[in-house]
Order: sequence, then structure tokens, then C-alpha cells
Amino acid sequence: MTRTTDDAALEVLSAEECYRLLATQQLGRLGLISNGNQIIMPVNYGLDGPVVVVRLGQGSVLRAADHANVAFEVDSIDPATHSGWSVLVRGLAEEVGDRHERGLAQRTRDTAVESWAPGERGHWLRVIPQAISGRRIVAGVPVDLLVDLGS
Amino acid sequence: MTRTTDDAALEVLSAEECYRLLATQQLGRLGLISNGNQIIMPVNYGLDGPVVVVRLGQGSVLRAADHANVAFEVDSIDPATHSGWSVLVRGLAEEVGDRHERGLAQRTRDTAVESWAPGERGHWLRVIPQAISGRRIVAGVPVDLLVDLGS
Repeated sequence: MTRTTDDAALEVLSAEECYRLLATQQLGRLGLISNGNQIIMPVNYGLDGPVVVVRLGQGSVLRAADHANVAFEVDSIDPATHSGWSVLVRGLAEEVGDRHERGLAQRTRDTAVESWAPGERGHWLRVIPQAISGRRIVAGVPVDLLVDLGS
Repeated sequence: MTRTTDDAALEVLSAEECYRLLATQQLGRLGLISNGNQIIMPVNYGLDGPVVVVRLGQGSVLRAADHANVAFEVDSIDPATHSGWSVLVRGLAEEVGDRHERGLAQRTRDTAVESWAPGERGHWLRVIPQAISGRRIVAGVPVDLLVDLGS
């Protein structure tokens, strides 16, 4: 494991920076309560403005998510440098259905989210953010590098 | 985005295979309820047998985690091939303290978990698994490859 000096820092990100980072990735983790149990599952996602769009198949996760408060996390952390960032969205999840206006359903499908996991994913879920927060880990100088530099 | 044929499959993993995979990574996501809100945060971890060990600083996350049911997720998914795996542990989290026998505290510290994020991480948390489950995404054949092969 690369050791670094103790001057690594944790930087709090603005909401704007959080959304910019969300737009750079395709895979996040959806957290919700299903049958009284907390679950976290990797999901592909897209964005309709600030709304996170994911696709789910029919089943217990969809039932647990619809009209529920959920968490959605995305991160990108480099194991080599120990630097990276994470963003957490807390929001209300809602399945897109007939009661929604056509424009919203269309915008949701226009995100063109493709699930890497196989299986039917006919249900589109929108996570309407209530709070977004993020942190960036700014790595310290690798100790090996300090040694190389003779310090 | 690489397109694959529709024969990708989702394989259910045994508990033994889940633990084998957990031992290959250093970074997971801890999910818990803090002040009524679900949060998911990336954390470094180690294993003491089946017990997941993470380090936390003093604060609201530690207070929310201690003696609580938490979720812990690890995945490794290749964006190029859309294949990979994810493992979910549900368990009871417990901070290691004076009331624990010395051997347990020592074993916990012997996991030598190092946090990549900076800041004081003087508190050691054990997540005692109540359930473990995992899935592997076996990718379909990339469509590009099929074309290359003339099929």
C-alpha cells in the first residue's frame, strides 16, 4: 500500500461541483430500505437536470423505492494515489407512470440509461434530490516520492 | 458505450465466494441511518474473519453506527466490459471499546485498516454480519467482437 504524508485534505464540494462530477460517471449506488432492511446496490444512472434517473426491474426493490426516501452515492477514488471524490444525493424516488405528463416521461427516457446488469429493466425511477453533498480527498505526497527526492 | 449481446447473465454468489471477493478489495461503502437520513459513504475496510472492520472519526456517523444495523457494500465492475460483481453485507455495527476482551480489540487493530481519507480515525468499528449476498454480472459478447468475427 502506498503511504502518504499526513497533509492529505478533505475538501467540501459545492452543489454545482457535485452535479458536475455526477455527470462524469455512469455507475452509482442506490440505498434504500426494503422489508425493514437497508440495502445498497450498484446501478447505472443518468441525469435529467438535477434528477437522477435509474432503471429497475419489477420486484421488491422497485416496490421499496417508489415514493420512498432513498440515498444515491457516486464516487471515483484512485487506489494508487488515494485521491478522489464522493457525492451523496438524498432524495425522493418516484417511478415514472401514466399520471406523469408526457414531457417528463420523455425527458426521463431521453437520459438513455442502459443497465449493465442483465434482465428486464422496464421501470424508470426518478430520484428528486432534497440534499446533495460531496467531498474530495486531496492526497498527501507519497512517502516513496519523498524518499526518492532525498527528503 | 460498448454494446453487448443479450446473453449477459446475473449469477448469485455463495457466501464463501462473497467473502473471498471481499478479501480482494480495500474500499467499500457503509450505509446507515443518521438523524433519520440514509447516508452512504466510501470507507476503507479490513476483515477479521467474517467481521468487517472500518475506522471512523468522532462524530455523528460514529454515533449513528454504534449498536445499529448497517449495510456494507463492495463492488468491482469494469466499465469496459460491463462485467463484475457486488457483495452486500447487512450487520450489526459495534465500536470496539474497553468492555471488549483484549484479544478481540487486538485482532481488530491487526486488520491494519488504513483510511485513505485524512483526519483522525481513532474509532474502530466492527460490522458483525447477519446476512451476506452477492451477484456477479457475466457480460454478453461485445457486439463489436461479433462484427470483427464476421458473424
